[in-house]
Amino acid sequence: MSRLEMTLEAVRGFIGEGEILGDQDFVCRSVASLEGAEGDQLSFVKDRRFFDRARQSHAGAILVPEAIEGVTAHQLVVGNPYVAFGALLHKIAREKRAQPGGIHPSAVVYSGAVIGDDVTIGAGAVVREDVVLGDRSVLYPNSYVGQRCKIGHDCVLHPNVVVMEDVTLGDRVIIHGGSVIGGDGYGYIQHEGRHIKVPQVGEIVIGDDVEIGALVTIDRATLDRTVIGSGTKIGDLAHVAHNCQIGQDVLLLPTSAVSGSVILGDRVILAGRAGVIDNLTVGEGAVIGATSVAFKDVPAGAQMWGNPARDKTLEMRIQGSLRRLPQMQRDMRAVKQKIDS
Amino acid sequence: MSRLEMTLEAVRGFIGEGEILGDQDFVCRSVASLEGAEGDQLSFVKDRRFFDRARQSHAGAILVPEAIEGVTAHQLVVGNPYVAFGALLHKIAREKRAQPGGIHPSAVVYSGAVIGDDVTIGAGAVVREDVVLGDRSVLYPNSYVGQRCKIGHDCVLHPNVVVMEDVTLGDRVIIHGGSVIGGDGYGYIQHEGRHIKVPQVGEIVIGDDVEIGALVTIDRATLDRTVIGSGTKIGDLAHVAHNCQIGQDVLLLPTSAVSGSVILGDRVILAGRAGVIDNLTVGEGAVIGATSVAFKDVPAGAQMWGNPARDKTLEMRIQGSLRRLPQMQRDMRAVKQKIDS
Amino acid sequence: MSRLEMTLEAVRGFIGEGEILGDQDFVCRSVASLEGAEGDQLSFVKDRRFFDRARQSHAGAILVPEAIEGVTAHQLVVGNPYVAFGALLHKIAREKRAQPGGIHPSAVVYSGAVIGDDVTIGAGAVVREDVVLGDRSVLYPNSYVGQRCKIGHDCVLHPNVVVMEDVTLGDRVIIHGGSVIGGDGYGYIQHEGRHIKVPQVGEIVIGDDVEIGALVTIDRATLDRTVIGSGTKIGDLAHVAHNCQIGQDVLLLPTSAVSGSVILGDRVILAGRAGVIDNLTVGEGAVIGATSVAFKDVPAGAQMWGNPARDKTLEMRIQGSLRRLPQMQRDMRAVKQKIDS
Repeated sequence: MSRLEMTLEAVRGFIGEGEILGDQDFVCRSVASLEGAEGDQLSFVKDRRFFDRARQSHAGAILVPEAIEGVTAHQLVVGNPYVAFGALLHKIAREKRAQPGGIHPSAVVYSGAVIGDDVTIGAGAVVREDVVLGDRSVLYPNSYVGQRCKIGHDCVLHPNVVVMEDVTLGDRVIIHGGSVIGGDGYGYIQHEGRHIKVPQVGEIVIGDDVEIGALVTIDRATLDRTVIGSGTKIGDLAHVAHNCQIGQDVLLLPTSAVSGSVILGDRVILAGRAGVIDNLTVGEGAVIGATSVAFKDVPAGAQMWGNPARDKTLEMRIQGSLRRLPQMQRDMRAVKQKIDS
Repeated sequence: MSRLEMTLEAVRGFIGEGEILGDQDFVCRSVASLEGAEGDQLSFVKDRRFFDRARQSHAGAILVPEAIEGVTAHQLVVGNPYVAFGALLHKIAREKRAQPGGIHPSAVVYSGAVIGDDVTIGAGAVVREDVVLGDRSVLYPNSYVGQRCKIGHDCVLHPNVVVMEDVTLGDRVIIHGGSVIGGDGYGYIQHEGRHIKVPQVGEIVIGDDVEIGALVTIDRATLDRTVIGSGTKIGDLAHVAHNCQIGQDVLLLPTSAVSGSVILGDRVILAGRAGVIDNLTVGEGAVIGATSVAFKDVPAGAQMWGNPARDKTLEMRIQGSLRRLPQMQRDMRAVKQKIDS
Repeated sequence: MSRLEMTLEAVRGFIGEGEILGDQDFVCRSVASLEGAEGDQLSFVKDRRFFDRARQSHAGAILVPEAIEGVTAHQLVVGNPYVAFGALLHKIAREKRAQPGGIHPSAVVYSGAVIGDDVTIGAGAVVREDVVLGDRSVLYPNSYVGQRCKIGHDCVLHPNVVVMEDVTLGDRVIIHGGSVIGGDGYGYIQHEGRHIKVPQVGEIVIGDDVEIGALVTIDRATLDRTVIGSGTKIGDLAHVAHNCQIGQDVLLLPTSAVSGSVILGDRVILAGRAGVIDNLTVGEGAVIGATSVAFKDVPAGAQMWGNPARDKTLEMRIQGSLRRLPQMQRDMRAVKQKIDS
């Protein structure tokens, strides 16, 4: 359990305002949802729609927007419980993964690396030649940063993350466990039935505030740059192939995949297991639905569903018609008989 | 080759019964199927249906339920060759991955960890603060166990497995190479076109006898617990998103995926690359076919096929009709012409 | 940026021929495509179709098949610019990942290992008992090679690659970061609602010149051998299940998946996210399209599209008909009304 371990009074102090209804010395051991909370946990009520759930909750204390009758938990009335609870979550998240700081004796830092202030380089982590590592960045144990990479400030690379050579990360980039950034793109030339490797010598440039889930692969460009725009969020087990140009604030949900040389505009969303075939362009703000796969360019703002992806309204009509297709086939036989007779 | 290196007499001793037809000093170097076996290998015959294959096999020795005429291999007649062969497999599997035992000098165990008896902590493995590690559990090289995790007895974490903080494993849990348990769920709030991270401070609780394949991702809950029930088996490259409640004895085959906050009842089966969209419930014992994806709740015991998943019988009818759809379209044109003329 | 750092004269020397139009002392810092190049980079023109792009390029120098008018860059005229540029790429690729050589002090090599000449075993890499490692092979940091594996000459295992016990690699095999070769196949026997593990004691045999992308899983055979033929190329996040027999020069594109005991003939192609259901055979040279999944045996040379995969021509006709299906349903209602009235 990620610990909070604060009295309700201390929580009020952290939030900076609020009125306590109940015991100000009550200790909130941790946080939970209204449904999941136990007696020593703090929960929250976003607005009136959740008042009934609050009454049924086993939470020991609840952040509330106003005093709620019939709630047995201690209440802390604050202006915006949702925002206040979020601030507590950020505090817990920071503390539960607190790092020892410094460079562990079993980490290996090669020559030419420029290491910022207040970094953590965990046990067994490897920093290759000529890396630049920004201030306060954390390399978890057994992560790997290849030659000439530039890692910005306040980045976090979780355990066993692999960043191969010549990759640039902006500031505040988070990469979850085991992801591989900078593997070679899948590029071969066919020659007499054999497949000859095209060396992949390009780079990857990742902007600020990008978060990359666990076990994601992002491949380096063949010659130029694979680009991930600032603010983009990539889920677990997603794949971005070589030479892609991913815009800003794009959402690539878990297990989605983008083939080679694709261009995604800003704020594009690929839902779970969605995909885009190689060399296509998806316009700004377009959405490709869960498990849907674009085989053609997608205009800005479009909503595409299905595999192959079609306009969402058409695809929903087709799926509706499909349910009646066996009946329609029987109708057709009957019609033909009638006409022929 | 995983070695057996036992004489047929020693095999009889291990099984505890049986009659040898042939050379009791014949050395079985290893095991194989009837088709794949070479002259120094031991195979088995389950029942009469496999007698002909036994006659064609190159195996040096065969476990058989009764003497088979025309088999040149040495035969060991036992009550249940299938069960006896399985016991030999378990013996081989134990020995082929035998561990050195103890804590390797290059492993790093942080303060507050409680380490059970007879554990192996491999080279470069990292055990963070306040971990509890049960008896006889094995952490392969370069695996990582985060703060406050509880690992039961007889667990095995293969190389480079990452278990982030606040994860609980039952007894006899096996996790194959590179899997990441406890990465952050994919949770963002949209605010003026940007995506603001919702800290994921919940836990994961995994029951007894769970096996998790290679390169699987299981995300921690936002607030409460992601749960994997006892006896559940998860294949390679599968994904379980945050807040899921997976029942007992569930089968998630390789590359299947379960989106956020999904509830799967006991004994549910997701075949290869099957999926379930977020916030759905799949009832006990339901089966979702290979590459099929549920976009609606699935009742207990249902068999669902297709994407979107439908009742299997309906989906098979639709697929059958689809093959005839181009012809039907031509028929329709003809019918309309006839009627109009 | 992967560096070239050669004068145009040095490039001519490396290629072994060519005429310089411009400054022979111009320093090419690195390489790029015509579109992506900056003023200090070298690019190339394959043939006349790209002459206009060359005129618009910002490249500082260009390899050309003949002098191109209107190009401001320095030109190096060579017989085959494409081949010459490829040779430069190979040179850059070799140098940008240059290894320190030798066995890092924090690597762990167990007893009985036979280590070839001029190998690199990186920091934290683990080589278990009785491994054979060929000449000039490179184990990147924190990679793992299990008991009794045989690794050929000139192989490269990227960081955090896991090769479990009893796996054989040919020569010149490349495995990208985090891939897991030799995890247990997904094999269970159902017994009274529980799933009993079938120990997976078989091997994996991988041929020469195989390249395996990042985060790929290849499972060991239950009893015999999972086989990957020489020259086969496997993309990121692909999955090969236990007991598969993959032919030579096969292409498994990123995120494709092959279920258990499948046989793929030589030169089969599975496009992105394509799949084959268990126990099927796909004949030599067959192609399974992107996101298409074979549920039946596929004859040699066939082109299969869709899920379930059908003959490509039929599937394209069906997809065309589907777009008109809602209209067809309206037509059917009209026809039935006319006939009934």
